[in-house]
Amino acid sequence: MITTNKQPRITLVGAGPGDPDLLTIKGLKAIQKADVVLYDALVGKEVLDYIPEKAIRMYVGKRANDHRYSQDEINELMVRYACLHGHVVRLKGGDPFVFGRGHEEIKFATDHNIEVSIVPGISSCIAVPELQQVPITCRGLSESFWVLTGTTKAGVLSNDISVAAQSSATIVILMGLKKIREIAKVFRKNGKSELPVMVVQSGSTEKEKVVLGTINSIENEILKNKISTPAIIVVGAVVGLHPAFAREDFIKKIVMLEEEKVSIS
Amino acid sequence: MITTNKQPRITLVGAGPGDPDLLTIKGLKAIQKADVVLYDALVGKEVLDYIPEKAIRMYVGKRANDHRYSQDEINELMVRYACLHGHVVRLKGGDPFVFGRGHEEIKFATDHNIEVSIVPGISSCIAVPELQQVPITCRGLSESFWVLTGTTKAGVLSNDISVAAQSSATIVILMGLKKIREIAKVFRKNGKSELPVMVVQSGSTEKEKVVLGTINSIENEILKNKISTPAIIVVGAVVGLHPAFAREDFIKKIVMLEEEKVSIS
Repeated sequence: MITTNKQPRITLVGAGPGDPDLLTIKGLKAIQKADVVLYDALVGKEVLDYIPEKAIRMYVGKRANDHRYSQDEINELMVRYACLHGHVVRLKGGDPFVFGRGHEEIKFATDHNIEVSIVPGISSCIAVPELQQVPITCRGLSESFWVLTGTTKAGVLSNDISVAAQSSATIVILMGLKKIREIAKVFRKNGKSELPVMVVQSGSTEKEKVVLGTINSIENEILKNKISTPAIIVVGAVVGLHPAFAREDFIKKIVMLEEEKVSIS
Repeated sequence: MITTNKQPRITLVGAGPGDPDLLTIKGLKAIQKADVVLYDALVGKEVLDYIPEKAIRMYVGKRANDHRYSQDEINELMVRYACLHGHVVRLKGGDPFVFGRGHEEIKFATDHNIEVSIVPGISSCIAVPELQQVPITCRGLSESFWVLTGTTKAGVLSNDISVAAQSSATIVILMGLKKIREIAKVFRKNGKSELPVMVVQSGSTEKEKVVLGTINSIENEILKNKISTPAIIVVGAVVGLHPAFAREDFIKKIVMLEEEKVSIS
């Protein structure tokens, strides 16, 4: 069996939403000192350019309908590679602790007496709306935000979404694109048909696509603009701050003024 | 009047929770190209070491009870310095859009026709529990997380906290330390006296202090351990995953086994 003199250790690194410059300095330093990098589908390709040439790199692809390795297999790989080669960086999209099963991975590693470090990443739940100039909190509009997953372990719509639709929080839903009709129904039931909604596909990357609408119109907008996963859904008054909405209001005002002029003359 | 040939522009940068290595590469690049940096109290001191020597640096201190400049004054400063000197970096602790009034700042700047860029930062609401090995989401324990402020614009406890206490989300409260008694009362009313709670002061920095308890015991723990602001409160079953809780369970089990032995013998 091949062994190493190096101390086995694992660093769990959040790669951020896709833009390679949204990696942290700490994440960069960890990658540069990696003997092995195990990475996910949602890690931006340019982030992988930071991996040293001599390091082993391995895609352990996990995204909807493409679980190349099971979680158990990934856990085993991490520990085995750490024992064989030294420093394993487990590189995950966004932040490893936001629906990332990062805790299961560090628990498995510490149960095997392997030293673990954690490097948080920029999570798309905050950063992706932010890059659209939509703040998830805003004085007077939203005093809190609630982040949910559209798809629970059981594959059904999370029950929390019903409670969320009754709250005044900004609602951010990850992995919810395919459940948009059900989600919209829940908000409609709570009399929120006209609440603004934004859906962003591949936020912060070159493939980024954004659609805006309301609870009533968003499904149609998604279909019309062929939005696909990975996507993030933001529901709340703060979406009305998006520059496109602001422009629309401006245009409406001009149209109204023009109509007033016509009616006066 | 002094003017500059440089194009006036503003970059809003999130400095992260305190550890200077938790700044993003993009944030670092922006700071290194700054002509002026306007920074807040919650920005880690070592992050300021990245500011070029020739740049103007100015503390516009904003934290509880120390509003050296009003928000309006900060907005004015940003725009004035951009016109006078070129590239202004507005450096804020955590993420500028999480209770950071970042949106007000970019709106003011764009209303004055100044080009604005946004660089998200690592928000303490996710990263601080994470660095304690507490995941804010975890399969089977918590399918969502809700981030609230303890202190609303009106200075009273946010109404959302009552709704939050009824949900099954992990609850993260920023700026809530002084309201801990009221917060605990809301959770007790919902029959959650034994729900685990963690309070972290100055997370990710050398001044970090952590206390663990339950809704019933946390106020006492805070007083006993002299926890002060800035602090973040995490309420939920996931807090039970903190290694100290796990150790406590382990000790309880040993004590139980010892007692069994005694009762058998």
